[in-house]
Amino acid sequence: MRILVINPNTTASMTRKIGMAAEAAASPATEIVAVNPKDGPPSIEGYFDEVFVIPGILAEMTKAGPVDAYVIACFDDTGLDAARCATEAPVIGIGEAAFHLATLVAGRFSVVTTLARSIPAIEHNLSKYGLASRCAKVRASDVAVLDLELAGSDARRKVSAEIARAVSEDRAEAIVLGCAGMADLAHALSLEHGVPVLDGVACAVRLAETVAALGLRTSKVGGYAAPLAKRFAGYYAPWSPGAG
Amino acid sequence: MRILVINPNTTASMTRKIGMAAEAAASPATEIVAVNPKDGPPSIEGYFDEVFVIPGILAEMTKAGPVDAYVIACFDDTGLDAARCATEAPVIGIGEAAFHLATLVAGRFSVVTTLARSIPAIEHNLSKYGLASRCAKVRASDVAVLDLELAGSDARRKVSAEIARAVSEDRAEAIVLGCAGMADLAHALSLEHGVPVLDGVACAVRLAETVAALGLRTSKVGGYAAPLAKRFAGYYAPWSPGAG
Amino acid sequence: MRILVINPNTTASMTRKIGMAAEAAASPATEIVAVNPKDGPPSIEGYFDEVFVIPGILAEMTKAGPVDAYVIACFDDTGLDAARCATEAPVIGIGEAAFHLATLVAGRFSVVTTLARSIPAIEHNLSKYGLASRCAKVRASDVAVLDLELAGSDARRKVSAEIARAVSEDRAEAIVLGCAGMADLAHALSLEHGVPVLDGVACAVRLAETVAALGLRTSKVGGYAAPLAKRFAGYYAPWSPGAG
Amino acid sequence: MRILVINPNTTASMTRKIGMAAEAAASPATEIVAVNPKDGPPSIEGYFDEVFVIPGILAEMTKAGPVDAYVIACFDDTGLDAARCATEAPVIGIGEAAFHLATLVAGRFSVVTTLARSIPAIEHNLSKYGLASRCAKVRASDVAVLDLELAGSDARRKVSAEIARAVSEDRAEAIVLGCAGMADLAHALSLEHGVPVLDGVACAVRLAETVAALGLRTSKVGGYAAPLAKRFAGYYAPWSPGAG
Amino acid sequence: MRILVINPNTTASMTRKIGMAAEAAASPATEIVAVNPKDGPPSIEGYFDEVFVIPGILAEMTKAGPVDAYVIACFDDTGLDAARCATEAPVIGIGEAAFHLATLVAGRFSVVTTLARSIPAIEHNLSKYGLASRCAKVRASDVAVLDLELAGSDARRKVSAEIARAVSEDRAEAIVLGCAGMADLAHALSLEHGVPVLDGVACAVRLAETVAALGLRTSKVGGYAAPLAKRFAGYYAPWSPGAG
Amino acid sequence: MRILVINPNTTASMTRKIGMAAEAAASPATEIVAVNPKDGPPSIEGYFDEVFVIPGILAEMTKAGPVDAYVIACFDDTGLDAARCATEAPVIGIGEAAFHLATLVAGRFSVVTTLARSIPAIEHNLSKYGLASRCAKVRASDVAVLDLELAGSDARRKVSAEIARAVSEDRAEAIVLGCAGMADLAHALSLEHGVPVLDGVACAVRLAETVAALGLRTSKVGGYAAPLAKRFAGYYAPWSPGAG
Repeated sequence: MRILVINPNTTASMTRKIGMAAEAAASPATEIVAVNPKDGPPSIEGYFDEVFVIPGILAEMTKAGPVDAYVIACFDDTGLDAARCATEAPVIGIGEAAFHLATLVAGRFSVVTTLARSIPAIEHNLSKYGLASRCAKVRASDVAVLDLELAGSDARRKVSAEIARAVSEDRAEAIVLGCAGMADLAHALSLEHGVPVLDGVACAVRLAETVAALGLRTSKVGGYAAPLAKRFAGYYAPWSPGAG
Repeated sequence: MRILVINPNTTASMTRKIGMAAEAAASPATEIVAVNPKDGPPSIEGYFDEVFVIPGILAEMTKAGPVDAYVIACFDDTGLDAARCATEAPVIGIGEAAFHLATLVAGRFSVVTTLARSIPAIEHNLSKYGLASRCAKVRASDVAVLDLELAGSDARRKVSAEIARAVSEDRAEAIVLGCAGMADLAHALSLEHGVPVLDGVACAVRLAETVAALGLRTSKVGGYAAPLAKRFAGYYAPWSPGAG
Repeated sequence: MRILVINPNTTASMTRKIGMAAEAAASPATEIVAVNPKDGPPSIEGYFDEVFVIPGILAEMTKAGPVDAYVIACFDDTGLDAARCATEAPVIGIGEAAFHLATLVAGRFSVVTTLARSIPAIEHNLSKYGLASRCAKVRASDVAVLDLELAGSDARRKVSAEIARAVSEDRAEAIVLGCAGMADLAHALSLEHGVPVLDGVACAVRLAETVAALGLRTSKVGGYAAPLAKRFAGYYAPWSPGAG
Repeated sequence: MRILVINPNTTASMTRKIGMAAEAAASPATEIVAVNPKDGPPSIEGYFDEVFVIPGILAEMTKAGPVDAYVIACFDDTGLDAARCATEAPVIGIGEAAFHLATLVAGRFSVVTTLARSIPAIEHNLSKYGLASRCAKVRASDVAVLDLELAGSDARRKVSAEIARAVSEDRAEAIVLGCAGMADLAHALSLEHGVPVLDGVACAVRLAETVAALGLRTSKVGGYAAPLAKRFAGYYAPWSPGAG
Repeated sequence: MRILVINPNTTASMTRKIGMAAEAAASPATEIVAVNPKDGPPSIEGYFDEVFVIPGILAEMTKAGPVDAYVIACFDDTGLDAARCATEAPVIGIGEAAFHLATLVAGRFSVVTTLARSIPAIEHNLSKYGLASRCAKVRASDVAVLDLELAGSDARRKVSAEIARAVSEDRAEAIVLGCAGMADLAHALSLEHGVPVLDGVACAVRLAETVAALGLRTSKVGGYAAPLAKRFAGYYAPWSPGAG
Repeated sequence: MRILVINPNTTASMTRKIGMAAEAAASPATEIVAVNPKDGPPSIEGYFDEVFVIPGILAEMTKAGPVDAYVIACFDDTGLDAARCATEAPVIGIGEAAFHLATLVAGRFSVVTTLARSIPAIEHNLSKYGLASRCAKVRASDVAVLDLELAGSDARRKVSAEIARAVSEDRAEAIVLGCAGMADLAHALSLEHGVPVLDGVACAVRLAETVAALGLRTSKVGGYAAPLAKRFAGYYAPWSPGAG
């Protein structure tokens, strides 16, 4: 099985970290291809940044050729609906993956993300997925995304402190880490706090395998129908509508 | 007062129709500037098409220079959150505008839109805005967006038939027309069916005037904070983050 | 355009303040007529007081003769549904007006009202309007309504302190002032706290203009149908059912 | 135990029917006092009519002197919140009574009321009480309230036909009759349709007994706090605020 | 009238206390029969314990022979749905009884239960009943169920302290005691805190009387239909399906 | 990896069919152990039957010794919460598994189950999981569970007809089959109707693998905490509390 893992931002070190987390989580027989768009913002922090990465995500899907499943490795699940229109293969967002799996091991969970400005988009996704009632609170750790890439930053300490607050104040039974860049922290933080700590990258890769292995394809009836054929300047070139 | 009305698709005849509807609705002292992005899809029908218009919406905002308010004239309210990050001026979507005003003249309303594939995004917006409980049903009339531009099409008849069903089957007390291209039909359909029929373009223009006249600015605390400064290839050029 | 602004309580100084706020907010061409019922409680603080003002509101509507729109200037939106039955012209409550406009400039807002006893009615309205999910918290400042009319009271300080708590504790991106008597405080409090602060009187007047200018009439199908003709003692005299 | 059952409208025949239904439902030791306001509309059909009965309800409460509990015998639960402010004794609305008891014998119920114009207020109450998720549908039988008082009307047939539709189309496991004037129909309709059919008058009287017998008093903390002392013209005379 | 009050756990002292509370609450003419299953856990604290008491509850229902109503005296309302399938007589859970009655005397209530592990099941019931929106918070007092049976424990003090927090922090207007073993504390705690404090045992007994006296029977259409006839080892013997 | 798949009913042919479906869905390296309790009802149709299988489910968990994950193969997810208390290994219900995966390939889905009496428990689970908003409708095909085991029954035809109605009437984009006994029908029905058709057994087995492979364990903080040690007659023998 071949899974295309798309880091929507352009920070190559983060793509590598995501790729390693994806490989560590995947079944041995699964080939992980981790990519990022050529152009676009180096990190995604809020509604504005999201806009500039989605055409790039779709372009990477086209460029990669046929795969068994796609993972969008931004916790906002940026471009997820559009990507599902563009293919019949499963497309899994790391945010939704972690939310769904958290509900299988805990009655309620809290999310610990990076900056406060990212909270509304995450809350909005939870509500859209139907899982808002399962989330106790979305919390910001006040860590910028790229600080997670810096060796000397106190990012890990801040995230851990916020987890402690979630467990004691929110009655959280599990924690979802709210950024692809936190993928390497989950295991140690789980041991430290005594509750499941979920990293979306690992969750999404395994869920993508699961959906693909079950032979489930994205429904082409309704909202994820193949886009109607339209030709326009600025369109990313090689994609052919409905090819899936 | 100067309001930039952005038709996110590239169909000039539709931009003209939207501009005329906007001018007809605006106060005499208001100057309407109706534009559309240079590149992108000729119509927006579903999640996929939305993606390719948002950078163009933001580019038009930059190109236009200072205005008092912005209207995004696609019923999906495409790019609304991102646009609000990019400015302190009010930004109003035509979908939200019609939903909010419908609740001021009716206990519940139904939406009549174009194709069934557009229903999920509209339902999702209603839920996000908090107004899902006020909407009886989102209905498709099975009219493609650009058929609304064709003289001989039976688009009007189909829309009217769907309104009749909404009134009798949904207990709808008002109707929201679910496409900017239906702007010219609202008045006649209201007379025909004896209930308020709301066109989002007119609603949004007046709401944009209202918010601007009240001196209300988009909050820069939280989700609509000015984007963090990031430089990257592919970025639309003249915009400077946080300029508002 | 002529708008009847009804202060449901009998405190004339408050009617004057509301009238001034309404005039300041209205378009130059709009004539504001600010009135209050002849009899009834001097302030509305909770469910009980509401009861005694609604017949008076309807009487003022009748007495005023034809207008283009009505504004009910009590934050509880007292009598709003009944008033909508009594006319085809738009009727806007100051509570709903502020809630709706707050969602256009902020992802979530908090309300700062007067006494704790008024919170349940406001929460109940938010839920009825569908906007409860957009409101972070309804807060009481422990200021009696008529203290807002007293020169030497510390009402302004208490309201400001509660706004500070809303911004820091609720993650509120905007504030709605929960009493018509706070109309004169909004601008200064917005500057002080760096978030939009909305006064319902100004919001409602502009929204009333908007709905009227768009030619939208209150739906007479369903819950706001004209009342069935009934004659009974105690009825306020000059109103004729269905006259609108 | 003495229970004041207030028919908010002024139709004496309906007050008698309600009184008889109340007596039939009450414990032998309970004294039922059935009254109606002196002035006001002969029936309550929609938001507008409600307004003119609430001061009268409160006046009847005062006039009656001390009782153990109050029942408001209009299915809209007109004036319920205000009445709770005016006393520490329990106040039960016939709508809420039937809704709550229906959930104890059935997973979901439908409501069959009189005219379509009354549906929104009932739906709104269900949502406010928290029980909207337990109600499959609120249905109108197109029977005017006072037609229920006429010997030769086909009111019973229409109500029965609507119950049949509720059972087959809504998957309703029980039926709530949505008008005090249907009190005499419940038993026969239950036998006819093979599901519990609840009359609010009977339900409310027994619930009022229950709450009073348990020594539960209306909370005076929060929304039902005794009204603040205010003197004003038009006030109904003998009531003294906070007397309870 | 004869009511079978089933304490699902096997602690006889608790059954006696529940029986006394039930008798104190019941009408003079009502005969209370308080029982507990022969085998099973001595207390119910969480999802696991619940499982082992439900067959015993059903067995006690069979053993008791015909009664007018059943009360299940565990705050989790353990086995309530199954018990309703097994009879046409009313079955009332003490949790639901207290929740419903609390909404008749207060706008919102908080629950004070025993251990934190019991909170999720209670929250889940509130949501299922539709009353989650009426409950401000479910709080644990950190008192084990059987500590409520011990003379020298500080259980009462802990429960009282948690009530104080509920009133001041949750804006709770009433308190529901979240364990059958707290039945004897309600009256004193209500006096102490000045808000209604509801004990589920008393509430359920009176509600059971009410539903039975009204002639209401558990609906046999839908989810509470009599179980299909099946014979299997381990089945409790004398029950015959559909006997009711 | 070793997964215990528990068919909660005692029909051995159904256990074999479930086992085969589980093996077909599992990764090659996974060992499936399909069991059913020794005693209990031959099928589970509604709330009553559920009660008698849960102690048996827990007994099978104990008897099986250590495994990597458990699957409960009844669409009602019978005993899921209790089973999670009894172990730290993941426990997945086939209902929840299908619901979660359906949301990854479709915006909304409908459920097609067996008898109408089973609908309420399924709706209740959907609401508890948070996914009710993603489910268009739960439909009964009027097929008894054991008819699915009979060669000559028209069960498949009835299920297929109900799927057709779901697609055309509910705007369902995917179908969830609401009974473990339908596991063998999913693939053909998906081809027939052109939408994803999900069988819970396959979904749950793969999800169980996923959660186990990710190293996620059931949270022991909160509702799924290990049961407190209690000894009582009737308890199933070999289980030791907290052993996990």
